[in-house]
Amino acid sequence: MKRVEALRQLAFEKKGFDGFLIANEANLLYFTGFPRATCLLIPKTGKSTIYVYSVNYEQAKAEGKSFKVELVKRGEKLMEKIAAQVKDFKIKKLAVDTLNLENYRNLAKGLRGETRLKIQNKLVWELRKVKDEKELELMRKAGELTSEGMKAAYETIRPGVREYEVAAEIEYAMRKTGSWGTAFETIVASGVRSAFPHGGCTDRKIQKGDLVVVDIGATYKYYRSDMTRTVTAGKPSAKQKKIYEIVRLAQEKAFQAVKPKAKAKEVDVNARKVIEDAGYGEYFVHGLGHGVGLEVHEPPTLNQESKDRLRVGNVVTIEPGIYIVGFGGIRMEDTVLVRKRKAEKLTRGSYTLETEQ
Amino acid sequence: MKRVEALRQLAFEKKGFDGFLIANEANLLYFTGFPRATCLLIPKTGKSTIYVYSVNYEQAKAEGKSFKVELVKRGEKLMEKIAAQVKDFKIKKLAVDTLNLENYRNLAKGLRGETRLKIQNKLVWELRKVKDEKELELMRKAGELTSEGMKAAYETIRPGVREYEVAAEIEYAMRKTGSWGTAFETIVASGVRSAFPHGGCTDRKIQKGDLVVVDIGATYKYYRSDMTRTVTAGKPSAKQKKIYEIVRLAQEKAFQAVKPKAKAKEVDVNARKVIEDAGYGEYFVHGLGHGVGLEVHEPPTLNQESKDRLRVGNVVTIEPGIYIVGFGGIRMEDTVLVRKRKAEKLTRGSYTLETEQ
Repeated sequence: MKRVEALRQLAFEKKGFDGFLIANEANLLYFTGFPRATCLLIPKTGKSTIYVYSVNYEQAKAEGKSFKVELVKRGEKLMEKIAAQVKDFKIKKLAVDTLNLENYRNLAKGLRGETRLKIQNKLVWELRKVKDEKELELMRKAGELTSEGMKAAYETIRPGVREYEVAAEIEYAMRKTGSWGTAFETIVASGVRSAFPHGGCTDRKIQKGDLVVVDIGATYKYYRSDMTRTVTAGKPSAKQKKIYEIVRLAQEKAFQAVKPKAKAKEVDVNARKVIEDAGYGEYFVHGLGHGVGLEVHEPPTLNQESKDRLRVGNVVTIEPGIYIVGFGGIRMEDTVLVRKRKAEKLTRGSYTLETEQ
Repeated sequence: MKRVEALRQLAFEKKGFDGFLIANEANLLYFTGFPRATCLLIPKTGKSTIYVYSVNYEQAKAEGKSFKVELVKRGEKLMEKIAAQVKDFKIKKLAVDTLNLENYRNLAKGLRGETRLKIQNKLVWELRKVKDEKELELMRKAGELTSEGMKAAYETIRPGVREYEVAAEIEYAMRKTGSWGTAFETIVASGVRSAFPHGGCTDRKIQKGDLVVVDIGATYKYYRSDMTRTVTAGKPSAKQKKIYEIVRLAQEKAFQAVKPKAKAKEVDVNARKVIEDAGYGEYFVHGLGHGVGLEVHEPPTLNQESKDRLRVGNVVTIEPGIYIVGFGGIRMEDTVLVRKRKAEKLTRGSYTLETEQ
């Protein structure tokens, strides 16, 4: 309920709303701790209510204890039901985090112009961007589990093994040590496919000399982590080593720049400049990183367009890469917590290119 | 391109549109076969174009070969770019599958009233609901892999093992045999938590006598599968056996009713009646099933409100359940293909409640 209170403070006291409707899945989890709510209505006066369908009703009553639990019955229209409740609460200015087009139209129709409706997702992000101690505990654990997965990748990758077989070992290692699932689809992209930043994971057999980009994440109690290493199957070539060192240096320079009040786009520049100076600027085809938390891609964004400034409690990825079609790709990524002095890496792993050590 | 042609036929010839914008991720995969497109614009006259960001540009050129590939450059606004292209193609009546509120507003603004814009997601579902031979090949494989996972569940579940440890063995078994990942978050819900249909998977230790609901799915080349079994850790009680047999019979009755032209809601009734007649109607708190394909929840829907009729090529789940707080839950589910005569089960597994056989 502390998080609901923080939203009330922000939306009601500072912004003049008198009701907030939360409909986004991750936001619902953030405010209720319960993974199966369909909507949460927070009135300025009155009890916050979660709406659930019958399939999740008993679980909501058991696990959503601080909230009033409202059952959406068979045949009832959710948005109509919420609109009626908004009127009961006498809400005049309702903020909503996100709604799809159909729900937005139905809600607006139900409110009949008697309540003003405004999308205010940014207010929720203001809160979610800054992780509290409880969240950091879970994210540290997610980071540890991810690091276990990466160890398994180093142990498994060799010529003749298929990409999905590597993924099997990685995910098994994360799960066995306590992961609740993958934070996103595991990437094990080898050879020519390593040149595609989102190369996925197929049944391709890894060849001798291949670059293999391994981009993985564990989830722990809904909190995610994100980590990439690139390794070679067998001895790396001189060019592979050279480009690897550039990416490694770019990541280190960016990591050093992760500080409170730093402009996110300048952290990106720290890495980008290393890669540009080495003559590979055009091959770094994405931003430096993104926030991580309940979702794997969150604000703040670290790229050349970002207007964000880092704050203590932000958790972001630092993931420079160089991708050359025909040669392959090299990316290195860690999930990093912004702290007062030195940033803290939540994912930890080898910085070597070779698997056979 | 056969699928794009089918959409052209449906939307342009029959419905009078002269352009179709696809923005939904699964729809993009369905029409392009390429997993990283951001949008696909299909004009009545002119070449279909996929839009991608720089991070996916090289992959799109390599893998999206039948389409024109348009790079969305840094700083470019996607919806503005598409609106300009719509004008170039002289599209007067544009169908869109789905757009979020912000994109819808930006696109409408970009079109300045010169092109009519209409959400037409149902047309796409008309196609996606009926799986073609290529899709069925992948779904059969996904079903086989899921069945491998279920075997691992039967082998692993015993008192003292944690839910996530069972999930680890299931997912490892699916991955090792070729799965591209899980179709949804694995459910291993034991004891009191088995009474929650979406009980998830935690670090709870399975106790002797527990009911354990195992709801899992493998993915193969983007196609998903969905299967549930419920087992006991140790010898089942008389009540567990009795309720299990009711659910088993309900599933069988529904399976027998899966035929072309059958009303989806009547297939639901076939299962529901068995459960109601046994006196447990109020504990079957969800619909009978749902379509499966590129997504794990698709049309057609099999529940009491459904207006769907089954057709040859539909793939649906049949998953009755009884959930009693304090006692636990029992669900049984298979993914099933509607065929001319007898329906075909794509997932296959034991129908026994006991793990120790």
